Amino acid sequence: MLTSSKYIENAVDQLSSLPGIGRKTALRLVLNLLNRSDEEVKRFSESFKDLKVNVQFCKTCFNLSDLEECGICRNLHREKNLICVVEDIRDIMAIEATQQYLGVYHVLGGRISPMDGIGPKDLRISELIRRIEKDDIQEVIFALSPTLEGDTTSFYLFKKLKEMGILVTSIAKGISVGNELEYTDEVTLGRSILDRKPFEKQSI
Amino acid sequence: MLTSSKYIENAVDQLSSLPGIGRKTALRLVLNLLNRSDEEVKRFSESFKDLKVNVQFCKTCFNLSDLEECGICRNLHREKNLICVVEDIRDIMAIEATQQYLGVYHVLGGRISPMDGIGPKDLRISELIRRIEKDDIQEVIFALSPTLEGDTTSFYLFKKLKEMGILVTSIAKGISVGNELEYTDEVTLGRSILDRKPFEKQSI
Repeated sequence: MLTSSKYIENAVDQLSSLPGIGRKTALRLVLNLLNRSDEEVKRFSESFKDLKVNVQFCKTCFNLSDLEECGICRNLHREKNLICVVEDIRDIMAIEATQQYLGVYHVLGGRISPMDGIGPKDLRISELIRRIEKDDIQEVIFALSPTLEGDTTSFYLFKKLKEMGILVTSIAKGISVGNELEYTDEVTLGRSILDRKPFEKQSI
Repeated sequence: MLTSSKYIENAVDQLSSLPGIGRKTALRLVLNLLNRSDEEVKRFSESFKDLKVNVQFCKTCFNLSDLEECGICRNLHREKNLICVVEDIRDIMAIEATQQYLGVYHVLGGRISPMDGIGPKDLRISELIRRIEKDDIQEVIFALSPTLEGDTTSFYLFKKLKEMGILVTSIAKGISVGNELEYTDEVTLGRSILDRKPFEKQSI
Protein backbone atom coordinates (compact mmCIF):
# COMPACT_ATOMS: atom_id res chain seq x y z
CA MET A 1 0.00 0.00 0.00
CA LEU A 2 1.49 3.29 -1.16
CA THR A 3 -0.84 5.79 0.48
CA SER A 4 -3.00 6.11 3.54
CA SER A 5 -6.24 6.32 1.55
CA LYS A 6 -8.08 3.36 0.06
CA TYR A 7 -9.83 5.66 -2.44
CA ILE A 8 -6.50 6.90 -3.79
CA GLU A 9 -5.26 3.32 -3.77
CA ASN A 10 -8.28 2.22 -5.81
CA ALA A 11 -7.83 5.01 -8.37
CA VAL A 12 -4.11 4.15 -8.61
CA ASP A 13 -5.01 0.47 -9.17
CA GLN A 14 -7.35 1.41 -12.00
CA LEU A 15 -5.00 3.84 -13.74
CA SER A 16 -2.01 1.51 -13.45
CA SER A 17 -4.06 -1.24 -15.13
CA LEU A 18 -3.67 0.78 -18.35
CA PRO A 19 -0.76 -0.20 -20.61
CA GLY A 20 2.46 1.74 -19.98
CA ILE A 21 1.32 3.31 -16.71
CA GLY A 22 3.09 2.11 -13.56
CA ARG A 23 1.95 2.65 -9.99
CA LYS A 24 4.20 5.66 -9.39
CA THR A 25 2.97 7.41 -12.53
CA ALA A 26 -0.62 6.51 -11.64
CA LEU A 27 -0.18 8.08 -8.22
CA ARG A 28 1.19 11.26 -9.81
CA LEU A 29 -1.91 11.37 -12.06
CA VAL A 30 -4.28 10.80 -9.14
CA LEU A 31 -2.62 13.59 -7.14
CA ASN A 32 -3.07 15.82 -10.18
CA LEU A 33 -6.79 14.94 -10.25
CA LEU A 34 -7.09 15.69 -6.53
CA ASN A 35 -5.82 19.21 -7.19
CA ARG A 36 -8.73 19.90 -9.54
CA SER A 37 -12.24 21.13 -8.78
CA ASP A 38 -15.04 18.67 -7.94
CA GLU A 39 -16.66 19.52 -11.26
CA GLU A 40 -13.55 18.70 -13.27
CA VAL A 41 -13.02 15.36 -11.51
CA LYS A 42 -16.68 14.51 -12.13
CA ARG A 43 -16.26 15.28 -15.84
CA PHE A 44 -13.15 13.10 -15.89
CA SER A 45 -14.96 10.19 -14.27
CA GLU A 46 -18.06 10.50 -16.43
CA SER A 47 -16.14 10.56 -19.70
CA PHE A 48 -15.50 6.83 -19.20
CA LYS A 49 -18.90 5.95 -17.78
CA ASP A 50 -20.88 5.59 -20.98
CA LEU A 51 -17.96 4.85 -23.27
CA LYS A 52 -18.72 1.18 -23.78
CA VAL A 53 -22.47 1.80 -24.14
CA ASN A 54 -22.19 4.56 -26.71
CA VAL A 55 -19.28 3.45 -28.83
CA GLN A 56 -19.86 0.60 -31.24
CA PHE A 57 -18.24 -0.94 -34.29
CA CYS A 58 -19.41 0.42 -37.65
CA LYS A 59 -21.47 -2.41 -39.17
CA THR A 60 -19.72 -1.97 -42.54
CA CYS A 61 -16.04 -1.28 -41.89
CA PHE A 62 -15.62 -1.99 -38.13
CA ASN A 63 -14.29 1.46 -37.42
CA LEU A 64 -15.40 2.72 -33.99
CA SER A 65 -18.46 4.92 -34.21
CA ASP A 66 -21.23 6.53 -32.15
CA LEU A 67 -23.81 5.41 -34.73
CA GLU A 68 -24.50 2.11 -36.49
CA GLU A 69 -22.41 3.24 -39.43
CA CYS A 70 -19.30 5.42 -39.09
CA GLY A 71 -18.84 8.90 -40.50
CA ILE A 72 -16.59 7.68 -43.31
CA CYS A 73 -19.05 5.01 -44.51
CA ARG A 74 -21.95 7.51 -44.26
CA ASN A 75 -20.04 10.19 -46.20
CA LEU A 76 -21.57 10.44 -49.70
CA HIS A 77 -18.37 11.91 -51.15
CA ARG A 78 -16.22 8.86 -50.35
CA GLU A 79 -15.63 6.29 -53.11
CA LYS A 80 -17.44 3.20 -51.86
CA ASN A 81 -15.86 0.86 -54.44
CA LEU A 82 -12.36 1.43 -53.06
CA ILE A 83 -11.53 -0.39 -49.80
CA CYS A 84 -8.37 0.17 -47.80
CA VAL A 85 -7.65 -2.78 -45.48
CA VAL A 86 -6.02 -1.79 -42.17
CA GLU A 87 -5.16 -3.60 -38.95
CA ASP A 88 -6.47 -1.15 -36.44
CA ILE A 89 -8.64 1.97 -36.16
CA ARG A 90 -5.49 3.94 -35.35
CA ASP A 91 -4.30 3.20 -38.87
CA ILE A 92 -7.49 4.81 -40.22
CA MET A 93 -6.64 7.93 -38.26
CA ALA A 94 -3.08 7.94 -39.60
CA ILE A 95 -4.29 7.62 -43.20
CA GLU A 96 -7.08 10.17 -42.71
CA ALA A 97 -4.49 12.63 -41.42
CA THR A 98 -2.71 12.47 -44.80
CA GLN A 99 -5.88 13.73 -46.58
CA GLN A 100 -4.78 11.67 -49.61
CA TYR A 101 -7.40 8.92 -49.51
CA LEU A 102 -11.02 9.23 -50.54
CA GLY A 103 -12.17 5.61 -50.42
CA VAL A 104 -13.54 3.63 -47.47
CA TYR A 105 -11.85 1.27 -44.99
CA HIS A 106 -12.04 -2.22 -43.58
CA VAL A 107 -10.57 -2.85 -40.11
CA LEU A 108 -9.20 -6.39 -39.73
CA GLY A 109 -8.78 -6.06 -35.99
CA GLY A 110 -5.19 -7.34 -35.94
CA ARG A 111 -2.77 -9.35 -38.05
CA ILE A 112 -1.99 -13.02 -38.39
CA SER A 113 0.55 -13.83 -35.69
CA PRO A 114 0.99 -17.50 -34.69
CA MET A 115 3.33 -16.38 -31.89
CA ASP A 116 0.45 -14.48 -30.25
CA GLY A 117 -2.06 -17.19 -31.16
CA ILE A 118 -3.86 -14.98 -33.71
CA GLY A 119 -4.99 -16.89 -36.80
CA PRO A 120 -7.03 -15.82 -39.85
CA LYS A 121 -10.25 -16.73 -38.03
CA ASP A 122 -9.58 -14.10 -35.37
CA LEU A 123 -9.58 -11.35 -38.00
CA ARG A 124 -12.54 -9.87 -39.90
CA ILE A 125 -11.58 -11.57 -43.18
CA SER A 126 -14.91 -13.30 -43.92
CA GLU A 127 -16.63 -9.95 -43.39
CA LEU A 128 -14.29 -8.37 -45.96
CA ILE A 129 -14.98 -11.12 -48.50
CA ARG A 130 -18.75 -10.82 -47.98
CA ARG A 131 -18.45 -7.06 -48.46
CA ILE A 132 -16.55 -7.53 -51.74
CA GLU A 133 -19.12 -10.08 -52.96
CA LYS A 134 -22.09 -7.91 -52.02
CA ASP A 135 -20.94 -4.45 -53.10
CA ASP A 136 -19.37 -3.52 -56.40
CA ILE A 137 -15.78 -3.21 -55.17
CA GLN A 138 -13.13 -2.39 -57.78
CA GLU A 139 -9.93 -2.16 -55.78
CA VAL A 140 -8.70 -3.39 -52.41
CA ILE A 141 -5.63 -1.64 -51.00
CA PHE A 142 -3.56 -3.42 -48.36
CA ALA A 143 -2.27 -0.90 -45.85
CA LEU A 144 -0.71 -3.30 -43.34
CA SER A 145 2.55 -2.70 -41.52
CA PRO A 146 5.55 -4.02 -43.50
CA THR A 147 6.50 -6.46 -40.74
CA LEU A 148 6.64 -10.26 -40.74
CA GLU A 149 3.07 -10.49 -39.40
CA GLY A 150 1.75 -7.72 -41.66
CA ASP A 151 3.27 -9.31 -44.76
CA THR A 152 1.93 -12.74 -43.74
CA THR A 153 -1.54 -11.26 -43.41
CA SER A 154 -1.25 -9.51 -46.79
CA PHE A 155 -0.18 -12.76 -48.52
CA TYR A 156 -3.01 -14.71 -46.90
CA LEU A 157 -5.55 -12.08 -47.96
CA PHE A 158 -4.13 -11.87 -51.47
CA LYS A 159 -4.54 -15.65 -51.93
CA LYS A 160 -8.18 -15.33 -50.84
CA LEU A 161 -8.96 -12.30 -53.02
CA LYS A 162 -7.07 -12.98 -56.25
CA GLU A 163 -9.80 -15.22 -57.67
CA MET A 164 -12.49 -12.60 -57.10
CA GLY A 165 -11.45 -10.58 -60.14
CA ILE A 166 -10.70 -7.33 -58.38
CA LEU A 167 -7.57 -5.22 -58.38
CA VAL A 168 -5.51 -5.84 -55.22
CA THR A 169 -2.82 -3.27 -54.44
CA SER A 170 -0.50 -2.55 -51.55
CA ILE A 171 0.74 0.81 -50.27
CA ALA A 172 4.23 1.71 -51.53
CA LYS A 173 7.21 0.72 -49.40
CA GLY A 174 10.37 2.72 -49.86
CA ILE A 175 12.62 5.34 -48.37
CA SER A 176 10.81 7.81 -46.09
CA VAL A 177 10.30 11.31 -47.46
CA GLY A 178 12.86 13.64 -45.88
CA ASN A 179 15.23 10.83 -44.87
CA GLU A 180 18.91 10.72 -45.83
CA LEU A 181 19.66 7.87 -48.25
CA GLU A 182 22.80 6.78 -46.40
CA TYR A 183 20.93 6.20 -43.13
CA THR A 184 18.13 4.14 -44.68
CA ASP A 185 18.30 0.43 -43.81
CA GLU A 186 19.39 -1.85 -46.66
CA VAL A 187 16.15 -3.86 -46.89
CA THR A 188 14.07 -0.72 -47.42
CA LEU A 189 16.61 0.80 -49.79
CA GLY A 190 16.85 -2.46 -51.77
CA ARG A 191 13.08 -2.63 -52.04
CA SER A 192 12.86 1.01 -53.11
CA ILE A 193 15.27 0.26 -55.99
CA LEU A 194 13.31 -2.84 -57.08
CA ASP A 195 10.00 -0.94 -56.86
CA ARG A 196 11.29 2.12 -58.73
CA LYS A 197 8.79 4.18 -60.77
CA PRO A 198 9.09 6.24 -63.97
CA PHE A 199 10.10 9.71 -62.83
CA GLU A 200 7.20 11.46 -64.53
CA LYS A 201 4.76 9.15 -62.67
CA GLN A 202 6.11 9.99 -59.21
CA SER A 203 3.71 11.68 -56.87
CA ILE A 204 5.13 14.90 -55.49
CA MET B 1 -10.68 15.42 -34.35
CA LEU B 2 -8.83 12.13 -34.27
CA THR B 3 -11.70 9.66 -34.30
CA SER B 4 -15.23 9.37 -35.57
CA SER B 5 -16.77 9.15 -32.11
CA LYS B 6 -17.42 12.10 -29.83
CA TYR B 7 -17.46 9.79 -26.79
CA ILE B 8 -13.96 8.51 -27.58
CA GLU B 9 -12.91 12.09 -28.29
CA ASN B 10 -14.21 13.19 -24.89
CA ALA B 11 -12.41 10.37 -23.06
CA VAL B 12 -9.21 11.21 -24.97
CA ASP B 13 -9.60 14.90 -24.00
CA GLN B 14 -9.92 13.97 -20.35
CA LEU B 15 -7.01 11.51 -20.25
CA SER B 16 -4.70 13.82 -22.19
CA SER B 17 -5.41 16.58 -19.66
CA LEU B 18 -3.26 14.56 -17.23
CA PRO B 19 0.43 15.49 -17.05
CA GLY B 20 2.70 13.54 -19.39
CA ILE B 21 -0.12 11.97 -21.43
CA GLY B 22 -0.44 13.17 -25.03
CA ARG B 23 -3.44 12.66 -27.31
CA LYS B 24 -1.96 9.61 -29.07
CA THR B 25 -1.18 7.87 -25.79
CA ALA B 26 -4.62 8.81 -24.47
CA LEU B 27 -6.23 7.24 -27.54
CA ARG B 28 -4.23 4.04 -27.00
CA LEU B 29 -5.48 3.95 -23.41
CA VAL B 30 -9.10 4.56 -24.44
CA LEU B 31 -8.91 1.76 -27.03
CA ASN B 32 -7.56 -0.49 -24.28
CA LEU B 33 -10.56 0.43 -22.10
CA LEU B 34 -12.94 -0.30 -24.98
CA ASN B 35 -11.56 -3.84 -25.15
CA ARG B 36 -12.63 -4.51 -21.57
CA SER B 37 -15.95 -5.69 -20.20
CA ASP B 38 -18.71 -3.20 -19.29
CA GLU B 39 -18.16 -4.06 -15.64
CA GLU B 40 -14.46 -3.26 -15.77
CA VAL B 41 -14.98 0.07 -17.52
CA LYS B 42 -17.62 0.95 -14.92
CA ARG B 43 -15.18 0.15 -12.12
CA PHE B 44 -12.56 2.32 -13.84
CA SER B 45 -14.95 5.25 -14.15
CA GLU B 46 -16.25 4.96 -10.60
CA SER B 47 -12.82 4.87 -9.02
CA PHE B 48 -12.54 8.60 -9.79
CA LYS B 49 -16.14 9.51 -9.03
CA ASP B 50 -15.95 9.89 -5.27
CA LEU B 51 -12.25 10.60 -5.06
CA LYS B 52 -12.56 14.30 -4.22
CA VAL B 53 -15.43 13.70 -1.80
CA ASN B 54 -13.74 10.93 0.17
CA VAL B 55 -10.14 12.02 0.25
CA GLN B 56 -9.23 14.93 2.49
CA PHE B 57 -6.15 16.49 4.03
CA CYS B 58 -5.21 15.20 7.49
CA LYS B 59 -6.03 18.08 9.87
CA THR B 60 -2.68 17.68 11.63
CA CYS B 61 -0.01 16.93 9.03
CA PHE B 62 -1.80 17.56 5.68
CA ASN B 63 -1.13 14.07 4.42
CA LEU B 64 -4.00 12.76 2.26
CA SER B 65 -6.41 10.61 4.21
CA ASP B 66 -9.87 9.01 4.12
CA LEU B 67 -10.50 10.20 7.69
CA GLU B 68 -10.07 13.54 9.47
CA GLU B 69 -6.66 12.44 10.72
CA CYS B 70 -4.29 10.22 8.73
CA GLY B 71 -3.13 6.75 9.72
CA ILE B 72 0.33 7.99 10.70
CA CYS B 73 -1.00 10.72 13.03
CA ARG B 74 -3.54 8.27 14.52
CA ASN B 75 -0.86 5.60 15.10
CA LEU B 76 -0.12 5.43 18.86
CA HIS B 77 3.32 3.94 18.25
CA ARG B 78 4.66 6.95 16.32
CA GLU B 79 6.69 9.56 18.19
CA LYS B 80 4.52 12.66 18.13
CA ASN B 81 7.29 15.02 19.29
CA LEU B 82 9.39 14.39 16.17
CA ILE B 83 8.20 16.12 12.98
CA CYS B 84 9.65 15.48 9.53
CA VAL B 85 8.93 18.38 7.15
CA VAL B 86 8.38 17.29 3.52
CA GLU B 87 7.27 19.04 0.34
CA ASP B 88 4.73 16.57 -0.90
CA ILE B 89 2.81 13.48 0.17
CA ARG B 90 4.92 11.45 -2.26
CA ASP B 91 7.91 12.23 -0.05
CA ILE B 92 6.05 10.69 2.90
CA MET B 93 5.62 7.51 0.87
CA ALA B 94 9.32 7.48 -0.04
CA ILE B 95 10.37 7.89 3.60
CA GLU B 96 7.79 5.37 4.85
CA ALA B 97 9.18 2.85 2.35
CA THR B 98 12.58 3.04 4.10
CA GLN B 99 10.98 1.86 7.41
CA GLN B 100 13.61 3.94 9.22
CA TYR B 101 11.42 6.75 10.58
CA LEU B 102 9.03 6.50 13.50
CA GLY B 103 8.01 10.15 13.97
CA VAL B 104 5.21 12.09 12.29
CA TYR B 105 5.19 14.38 9.25
CA HIS B 106 4.25 17.86 8.10
CA VAL B 107 3.47 18.38 4.41
CA LEU B 108 4.39 21.89 3.23
CA GLY B 109 2.58 21.50 -0.08
CA GLY B 110 5.52 22.69 -2.21
CA ARG B 111 8.70 24.72 -1.87
CA ILE B 112 9.54 28.40 -2.12
CA SER B 113 10.09 29.12 -5.81
CA PRO B 114 9.89 32.75 -6.94
CA MET B 115 10.20 31.55 -10.57
CA ASP B 116 6.90 29.67 -10.22
CA GLY B 117 5.36 32.41 -8.11
CA ILE B 118 5.34 30.28 -4.94
CA GLY B 119 6.18 32.27 -1.83
CA PRO B 120 6.25 31.29 1.88
CA LYS B 121 2.56 32.23 2.19
CA ASP B 122 1.58 29.53 -0.31
CA LEU B 123 3.08 26.83 1.92
CA ARG B 124 1.77 25.43 5.20
CA ILE B 125 4.41 27.18 7.31
CA SER B 126 2.10 28.97 9.76
CA GLU B 127 0.37 25.63 10.39
CA LEU B 128 3.77 24.08 11.21
CA ILE B 129 4.64 26.89 13.62
CA ARG B 130 1.25 26.63 15.32
CA ARG B 131 1.77 22.88 15.68
CA ILE B 132 5.20 23.38 17.27
CA GLU B 133 3.78 25.99 19.65
CA LYS B 134 0.80 23.86 20.62
CA ASP B 135 2.36 20.41 20.96
CA ASP B 136 5.52 19.51 22.80
CA ILE B 137 7.78 19.12 19.75
CA GLN B 138 11.44 18.30 20.42
CA GLU B 139 12.92 17.98 16.93
CA VAL B 140 12.01 19.12 13.44
CA ILE B 141 13.73 17.30 10.56
CA PHE B 142 13.93 19.01 7.17
CA ALA B 143 13.56 16.42 4.43
CA LEU B 144 13.40 18.75 1.44
CA SER B 145 15.04 18.06 -1.92
CA PRO B 146 18.65 19.37 -2.02
CA THR B 147 17.85 21.77 -4.88
CA LEU B 148 17.97 25.55 -5.05
CA GLU B 149 14.28 25.80 -4.12
CA GLY B 150 14.48 23.09 -1.47
CA ASP B 151 17.50 24.74 0.19
CA THR B 152 15.82 28.17 0.06
CA THR B 153 12.78 26.71 1.79
CA SER B 154 14.96 25.02 4.44
CA PHE B 155 16.81 28.30 5.15
CA TYR B 156 13.58 30.25 5.38
CA LEU B 157 12.08 27.69 7.78
CA PHE B 158 15.26 27.53 9.85
CA LYS B 159 15.17 31.32 10.38
CA LYS B 160 11.57 31.04 11.57
CA LEU B 161 12.18 28.07 13.87
CA LYS B 162 15.56 28.78 15.44
CA GLU B 163 14.13 31.08 18.12
CA MET B 164 11.59 28.50 19.22
CA GLY B 165 14.20 26.52 21.16
CA ILE B 166 13.77 23.21 19.38
CA LEU B 167 16.34 21.03 17.64
CA VAL B 168 16.24 21.56 13.87
CA THR B 169 18.01 18.96 11.74
CA SER B 170 18.26 18.15 8.06
CA ILE B 171 18.54 14.75 6.40
CA ALA B 172 22.13 13.80 5.45
CA LYS B 173 23.37 14.71 1.99
CA GLY B 174 26.22 12.66 0.62
CA ILE B 175 27.23 9.98 -1.83
CA SER B 176 24.41 7.50 -2.62
CA VAL B 177 24.75 4.04 -1.13
CA GLY B 178 25.94 1.63 -3.82
CA ASN B 179 27.35 4.38 -6.06
CA GLU B 180 30.92 4.46 -7.37
CA LEU B 181 32.93 7.33 -5.88
CA GLU B 182 34.44 8.34 -9.22
CA TYR B 183 31.04 8.90 -10.84
CA THR B 184 29.62 11.04 -8.02
CA ASP B 185 29.27 14.75 -8.93
CA GLU B 186 31.79 17.04 -7.26
CA VAL B 187 29.25 19.10 -5.27
CA THR B 188 27.85 16.01 -3.58
CA LEU B 189 31.30 14.49 -3.03
CA GLY B 190 32.63 17.81 -1.61
CA ARG B 191 29.68 18.01 0.74
CA SER B 192 30.11 14.41 1.85
CA ILE B 193 33.73 15.18 2.82
CA LEU B 194 32.76 18.32 4.77
CA ASP B 195 29.90 16.47 6.49
CA ARG B 196 32.05 13.43 7.41
CA LYS B 197 31.15 11.45 10.53
CA PRO B 198 33.20 9.44 13.04
CA PHE B 199 33.35 5.94 11.57
CA GLU B 200 31.93 4.25 14.66
CA LYS B 201 28.89 6.57 14.48
CA GLN B 202 28.01 5.65 10.89
CA SER B 203 24.69 3.97 10.37
CA ILE B 204 25.07 0.69 8.53
